Amino acid sequence: MESAAMLILLVIGFSVFGLLSAAYLAKWVLGHPTGSEAMQRISNAIKEGAEAFLRRQNRTILMLAVLFAAVLFVGYGFVRSHRDFDPVGTSLALASWITLSFVFGALCSVFAGYVGMWVSIRSNIRTAHAALSSLNDALRIALRGGAVSGLLVVAMSLLGVSGLYALVNAVGGVVPTKIPLLIVGYGFGASFVALFAQLGGGIYTKAADVGADLVGKVEAGIPEDDPRNPAVVADLVGDNVGDCAGRGADLFESTAAENIGAMILGASLAAAAEKAGMAFSAGVIGVMMFPLVARAFGIVASLVGILMVKMDKEEKMDAMDALNRGYYVAVVLAMAAFGGATYWLLDSPAAPDAWWHFFLCGILGVLTSVAFVYITQYYTEYKYRPVQSIAEASKTGPATNIIAGVGVGLECTWMPAIVMGVALLASYFLGENSGLPHAGLFGTAVATMGMLATAAYILAMDTFGPITDNAGGIVEMSEQPEAVRKKTDRLDAVGNTTKALTKGYAIGSAGLAAFLLFQAYMDEVVQYAGLGHDYIFRVDIGKPVVFVGALLGAMLVFLFSAMAIRAVGRAAQSIIEEVRRQYAKLPRVNDIIQFPKDFKPDYGSCVDIVTRAALRRMVGPGLLVVLMPVSVGMVFRVFITETDKLISAEAVAALLMVGTITGILMALFFNNGGGAWDNAKKYIESGAHGGKYLTGPDNKKMKNPTHQAAVVGDTVGDPFKDTAGPSLHVVIKLLSTITLVLAPLFI
Amino acid sequence: MESAAMLILLVIGFSVFGLLSAAYLAKWVLGHPTGSEAMQRISNAIKEGAEAFLRRQNRTILMLAVLFAAVLFVGYGFVRSHRDFDPVGTSLALASWITLSFVFGALCSVFAGYVGMWVSIRSNIRTAHAALSSLNDALRIALRGGAVSGLLVVAMSLLGVSGLYALVNAVGGVVPTKIPLLIVGYGFGASFVALFAQLGGGIYTKAADVGADLVGKVEAGIPEDDPRNPAVVADLVGDNVGDCAGRGADLFESTAAENIGAMILGASLAAAAEKAGMAFSAGVIGVMMFPLVARAFGIVASLVGILMVKMDKEEKMDAMDALNRGYYVAVVLAMAAFGGATYWLLDSPAAPDAWWHFFLCGILGVLTSVAFVYITQYYTEYKYRPVQSIAEASKTGPATNIIAGVGVGLECTWMPAIVMGVALLASYFLGENSGLPHAGLFGTAVATMGMLATAAYILAMDTFGPITDNAGGIVEMSEQPEAVRKKTDRLDAVGNTTKALTKGYAIGSAGLAAFLLFQAYMDEVVQYAGLGHDYIFRVDIGKPVVFVGALLGAMLVFLFSAMAIRAVGRAAQSIIEEVRRQYAKLPRVNDIIQFPKDFKPDYGSCVDIVTRAALRRMVGPGLLVVLMPVSVGMVFRVFITETDKLISAEAVAALLMVGTITGILMALFFNNGGGAWDNAKKYIESGAHGGKYLTGPDNKKMKNPTHQAAVVGDTVGDPFKDTAGPSLHVVIKLLSTITLVLAPLFI
Repeated sequence: MESAAMLILLVIGFSVFGLLSAAYLAKWVLGHPTGSEAMQRISNAIKEGAEAFLRRQNRTILMLAVLFAAVLFVGYGFVRSHRDFDPVGTSLALASWITLSFVFGALCSVFAGYVGMWVSIRSNIRTAHAALSSLNDALRIALRGGAVSGLLVVAMSLLGVSGLYALVNAVGGVVPTKIPLLIVGYGFGASFVALFAQLGGGIYTKAADVGADLVGKVEAGIPEDDPRNPAVVADLVGDNVGDCAGRGADLFESTAAENIGAMILGASLAAAAEKAGMAFSAGVIGVMMFPLVARAFGIVASLVGILMVKMDKEEKMDAMDALNRGYYVAVVLAMAAFGGATYWLLDSPAAPDAWWHFFLCGILGVLTSVAFVYITQYYTEYKYRPVQSIAEASKTGPATNIIAGVGVGLECTWMPAIVMGVALLASYFLGENSGLPHAGLFGTAVATMGMLATAAYILAMDTFGPITDNAGGIVEMSEQPEAVRKKTDRLDAVGNTTKALTKGYAIGSAGLAAFLLFQAYMDEVVQYAGLGHDYIFRVDIGKPVVFVGALLGAMLVFLFSAMAIRAVGRAAQSIIEEVRRQYAKLPRVNDIIQFPKDFKPDYGSCVDIVTRAALRRMVGPGLLVVLMPVSVGMVFRVFITETDKLISAEAVAALLMVGTITGILMALFFNNGGGAWDNAKKYIESGAHGGKYLTGPDNKKMKNPTHQAAVVGDTVGDPFKDTAGPSLHVVIKLLSTITLVLAPLFI
Repeated sequence: MESAAMLILLVIGFSVFGLLSAAYLAKWVLGHPTGSEAMQRISNAIKEGAEAFLRRQNRTILMLAVLFAAVLFVGYGFVRSHRDFDPVGTSLALASWITLSFVFGALCSVFAGYVGMWVSIRSNIRTAHAALSSLNDALRIALRGGAVSGLLVVAMSLLGVSGLYALVNAVGGVVPTKIPLLIVGYGFGASFVALFAQLGGGIYTKAADVGADLVGKVEAGIPEDDPRNPAVVADLVGDNVGDCAGRGADLFESTAAENIGAMILGASLAAAAEKAGMAFSAGVIGVMMFPLVARAFGIVASLVGILMVKMDKEEKMDAMDALNRGYYVAVVLAMAAFGGATYWLLDSPAAPDAWWHFFLCGILGVLTSVAFVYITQYYTEYKYRPVQSIAEASKTGPATNIIAGVGVGLECTWMPAIVMGVALLASYFLGENSGLPHAGLFGTAVATMGMLATAAYILAMDTFGPITDNAGGIVEMSEQPEAVRKKTDRLDAVGNTTKALTKGYAIGSAGLAAFLLFQAYMDEVVQYAGLGHDYIFRVDIGKPVVFVGALLGAMLVFLFSAMAIRAVGRAAQSIIEEVRRQYAKLPRVNDIIQFPKDFKPDYGSCVDIVTRAALRRMVGPGLLVVLMPVSVGMVFRVFITETDKLISAEAVAALLMVGTITGILMALFFNNGGGAWDNAKKYIESGAHGGKYLTGPDNKKMKNPTHQAAVVGDTVGDPFKDTAGPSLHVVIKLLSTITLVLAPLFI
């Protein structure tokens, strides 16, 4: 049996190592030159806008978090009465631990997001400058800049969970296997921040993008990222606050929540195995710590992968291939380490086959993430039928373009659903047949860990996206020569792909993690209700109350999406009005604006308008998701009877599960539909169906209506793929963590 | 105790009365004059197109039905082995009854749809002609023409169920309470036909509409229903085959499936009550027959309401008010009769409060349908915020119009979900507290019956829609004076409202009926598995296998919608190409077509193209829905273990329930989103945001870009609201009936 202290020290050690690596990479990136004054001027504008937004956003989020922490503390400490089966002796102790972990989770998430973005908005200009001479340097700066975010997020999340565990353990008075019940608040705090960060960032980025595109390209007829467009800096800021800060918070909470959920299930499994006389050699604590150890190894694997990435000497290779090579290295290393960890911590002498069954579950998780990546590619790249069918439909105008895109978005859900189903069932049955009692659920948990093993690498690739996008913008706006633009365009195209792939990965892992989390929820309900490990908590949606819970869960997803999408529409309109105001006095010929040479748009006012709009509009949908499961749980307590004591908890479980199912499918619809529209436009711009411009009868260049129809689809897809879709990932996980934290209130 | 024979005779008598009333109304409508030769020419073209389509469609559907009947017969007769608890003695007898009821249900549904449309395509010209002189006559002809469909559908469905019951009873050898298990095939046959009828009709109508609009209004710049548009007749045909034949089949199966489901639950309840010593005075048979009796009374109530409808003398009143007055009469009568029926058949001396508890459930059902109607109005009429926000967003172009419309569609799901939840729980608890054991589910069944009590009236209002739409088209195309057009426009506007309301009603009743049907399914599974009435069959979505079933159910809805929407897009493109071909040789000035005076478009080729396209494209999505629950049920049999014998049936139940939840929400999204887009366009056409045309700088009339943006939204909404949405209603019910019929195969 391994000592708990030794394992905790190991995990903390690896986390600190991850943080130090992030610091090293940050120093490496910041050591590169920052380019000409023109480039710096633009980069500084982006930097200021992004930092100002993030500061104001964090202030709002922390205010909401403090409010919610107070509610949690009062609810647990004074409203709910103490029960025999609570993990600690008094209500006040329970309230303190849960509130503390919530606040700590929120703070860590904010910190990781802030620092990650701090580095990324400093990497963009260095990437742009490097592109002047070497594509290889540009690629490496962008990836390593992104890796700071990636490593920071994963290491912070791990450090938080293990640190809290060590703290509760040191204070004492709690059975070790019950500690995860006290620190679930950490995951919830992280989700809470993630939701608002992703929502606010998502609204910001797409309001700015849609606004800039509509007035810029469509009305004023100037290209994307043109310095004459007053909304262009807001657009570039948006890439950072939406894609980079938002997704960072998202995966921070994925790993945090998944760690805690897997610990709860691991402790249950190990206790049951011990009771059946099949104890693990590493003991209950060893099994419970397994998720943390596996994650710690994953950090190292990801780091090695990141450091391996470079171009060939002639810079001829596809940059995507370079990134993929690094990814495969990370995967292989992570799997090897995973195998070692299962053998070390999940071996039970009485069930000799158990450890490699779990190892297979982990590999299954990795394969699932690969499958998601390929499916995403099929539905969003213009080599394949779906995107081409949208481009084809654009020939008959915007209406058929939209109809085709909605069709593709709805269709793309079927393969992921089947892959997820197969992964869940296969890992469940691997666990069931491991020789240990009731090990099926832990099998699914291990598959999720496998999927998240390379989270740091994936996140680095994701943040690579906004960095290269910004680098391209800086190069464009500072009017660099064509050859440099070509280089940044190559990187930017790769960045678009990695952003899309990460979303596929995030939704896949959200699906698996959610299943794990609601098993943890059910386990927790049974423990708090004092019903013993043999009690089976069923979620019977044949009962009317539970069915209605399920119906409300699915409805929540629809309503939330509506609010998120509408927020973008509204905020974009305020941008459009501001730009029109700035353009109003410019001279026009035939309704075409004739920009004076000395025209200086007011970037700041656009940044300010969209900041205020995004912050105001993120509160409504965010609160909806936080308050709805709580309200349903509290209201449905009226249905509790002597014979059905868990009915309210059961209805909330149904809300959670069906909300998750609907959320996954809707997120796929939004993400892939939006991605497909985007690339249908790019496909036409690459020359298909006549390209961007046609030659008119009088030999004049005229706009190609097919391309204009595709632009409409692209614009519609923007809030789908960058606001509603990614926010739904967080919603799914927030639902799980909030019910985990509040479960005791529904019983 | 009432004798079964007497009750059956009563029900059959009322059904025949309903059929005779339909015949009388048809004769009354056909007795009106058919107008000028110009009008007849157009009407005949519509008639021919519609009849040709329906004939070909029915041929295809019946072929598929025969195939499926053979599969059913072989599956039950030869593949599945006989069990002790089967309702009849041999596999062959079981197979014969189930197959027979399936075929009979399919034939009745086809017949009701065909005759209903036969009358409606003869009512349109009579309505048009009547509009030359009297709005009151026009209104009454259109409503009574629609009522033929309405009465026929409800009476046929009732006659089919009661006739089959009488037949099985007469052949003998079956316990009466098990007869519903044998005739569930009737509902499935009806759903089978309904699915293909609604899909084929929905694809037809919207492909023609989208195609006609895009080339007509947008490209050629001619108004809607202009005789120079070759696709215009196909468009008018589409109104009949989609709205009228499709929705008829939809509600035919609603009532049929709901009757049988309620009978199954009633029999269970009465048996349980008898066992508990609380027998009903009307006996088990009386309770089981209650749904049929209540429905029979509803036919009479609807008929009275229909006959009451007329305008005031000066024809100043809103035609909608006239229709509403008739509706309220029907509702009040139906409720009074409902009260009588509950007192007569649902009274148990040992539980004196039971009957009025059930009566309240029925009233709750009616209130639910009223709530759905009001919610639909709020989200689709341009008096209210949602539609106005879409019109407002059109000012910044088609992209923001689409974003706003998607937002409205997603948002509109929340109120219906809450209303449905409240109705389900309230009727459940009314039943639970009726004093009878386990009467909660029967309470929800009674609420559904209440909701469907006025189905015949609602259906009459629905078919009123295509009749007035066609009448308007005939008046427009035969170039009648402005005053006549104004009259038909008034009726047409009312028809648009009634069509939208019926969809709200249909989805509400589908939701309640579905809950009833899956209770019937669960009851049936328990009976076939021989587990006794006390066994509780749970659908525990916490089990991985069941969760995956649920995930697949939700995915089915997305995939089906994708296929339906894409079918419209593709079929519309073939229409567009055909019209462009016909226009190719016409002279143009400045790219504007100059129609020669003698231009005669070829209507027939468009009708033919869209007929073939619709029939080809309805097969895929239709088969998907039919085959998926079967395949999941059969494949998941591998998970059956000694300890979990019902796991496969449980996974199918989860597929059914979560598929239903997702289906309801998606249908609301499609129906109301589409309706809102449609009316946002109409709102602008009525003069808002500049109206249809602006005055340009040189005082020339120019197109208003805000209106053009709204046209894009309207076109996108077409396949949403008239293909995907209504088809989903049927999908929900087909899932229920197919699982009911095939349940024995999953055990």
